Amino acid sequence: MDIALLGGTGDIGKGLALRWAHDTDHTITVGSRHIEKAETKVEEYRRELRERGVDPDIRACDNKTAARDARIVVVSIPPEYVTSTVESIAPSLSDDQVLVSPAVKMERDAAGFHYAAPNGNSIAEEIATVTPDEIPVVGAFQNLAAGALSDLDNDLKADVVLTGDDSEAKWKVESVAEKIDGLRALDGGSLANSALVESITPLLINLAMNNDGLHDLGIRFQ
Amino acid sequence: MDIALLGGTGDIGKGLALRWAHDTDHTITVGSRHIEKAETKVEEYRRELRERGVDPDIRACDNKTAARDARIVVVSIPPEYVTSTVESIAPSLSDDQVLVSPAVKMERDAAGFHYAAPNGNSIAEEIATVTPDEIPVVGAFQNLAAGALSDLDNDLKADVVLTGDDSEAKWKVESVAEKIDGLRALDGGSLANSALVESITPLLINLAMNNDGLHDLGIRFQ
Repeated sequence: MDIALLGGTGDIGKGLALRWAHDTDHTITVGSRHIEKAETKVEEYRRELRERGVDPDIRACDNKTAARDARIVVVSIPPEYVTSTVESIAPSLSDDQVLVSPAVKMERDAAGFHYAAPNGNSIAEEIATVTPDEIPVVGAFQNLAAGALSDLDNDLKADVVLTGDDSEAKWKVESVAEKIDGLRALDGGSLANSALVESITPLLINLAMNNDGLHDLGIRFQ
Repeated sequence: MDIALLGGTGDIGKGLALRWAHDTDHTITVGSRHIEKAETKVEEYRRELRERGVDPDIRACDNKTAARDARIVVVSIPPEYVTSTVESIAPSLSDDQVLVSPAVKMERDAAGFHYAAPNGNSIAEEIATVTPDEIPVVGAFQNLAAGALSDLDNDLKADVVLTGDDSEAKWKVESVAEKIDGLRALDGGSLANSALVESITPLLINLAMNNDGLHDLGIRFQ
């Protein structure tokens, strides 16, 4: 089962790419709007993984090609570009693929970070509005700290909440999520519940800002 | 430092009353709209605590008297009655007291539980709108599972996020929160951040509904 990370050159994309390439034997495709950028980053990821004795199955692509060939397509790009990117790849998707939404839209003021729901929707629901009905969308990975994820010396112990309306699609995402050491995937119910998960991300940033010694926070339900 | 639990006969009020009476030497006042109800509950709490070898400093009161005499006033009543209750006690409050808001307004549909912000505000902010400016309001305890809290055999290991605009008030609430074994209090920033904390509660219920073996969930940031 191949995994594509659209925007796999960004913070959270880097972390997921490194972890999946390190902990699993899946083929990982790093997509970018600029293929050169993806190639540079993949070279960097390969170097880091080889230093750790892993011969990684990871390659660079433009976003469109990356999305077309993967079973799981993670839209790990900044929230303002999510809709237009998904619109551009949607025509080449097929119904055995799953789109995964890890992005969160936030605003900042003097009080800290706040959750911003575009058009009153979560990003996961926004993606669903521009995706053909037969392609399932799953919200996941929003609450992972990019820093902790990218640092392979860091022992993760975090939960990932999955939201979506297609049980089989959630099962596929659960399967690849839990192949990353230290991640536990939980079912958060339908896609309509995605805002509850996305809104934890600004809280995590506020907590790191307001509490000495806390940084790169994840979440654990217990 | 005395603690009053308005609505201390309800689920979360019971849990906090039992834990504070068990783990600390604070005087705990259980308030209710109906003094008879508070008296019956306090008798029940006393019995349970005495069976565990604790001679509890706990008493029953009407909400107004309970609020007037306590340094920390926890408004642990259902969200629909929060504003009217605080309006009724506000005239007798003084500026060395702190109001604490653990309530969360939720709605339920086929998809699960959703966060409902009354008038676009968190409950904590709603309380602040009907409280004299000199009385600080702190959001806290929203994400504790009442069942886990009330069961003194249950070893808690949960975080409590505090939101508020008065640092000293937050410090007071932190102090009493961390006297409960297994609770860690974290600073979530200003009162404007309260919705981020309140909205975790419907997620916790959805997770318990959708995942076998998970119930009475709390949250831990790590």
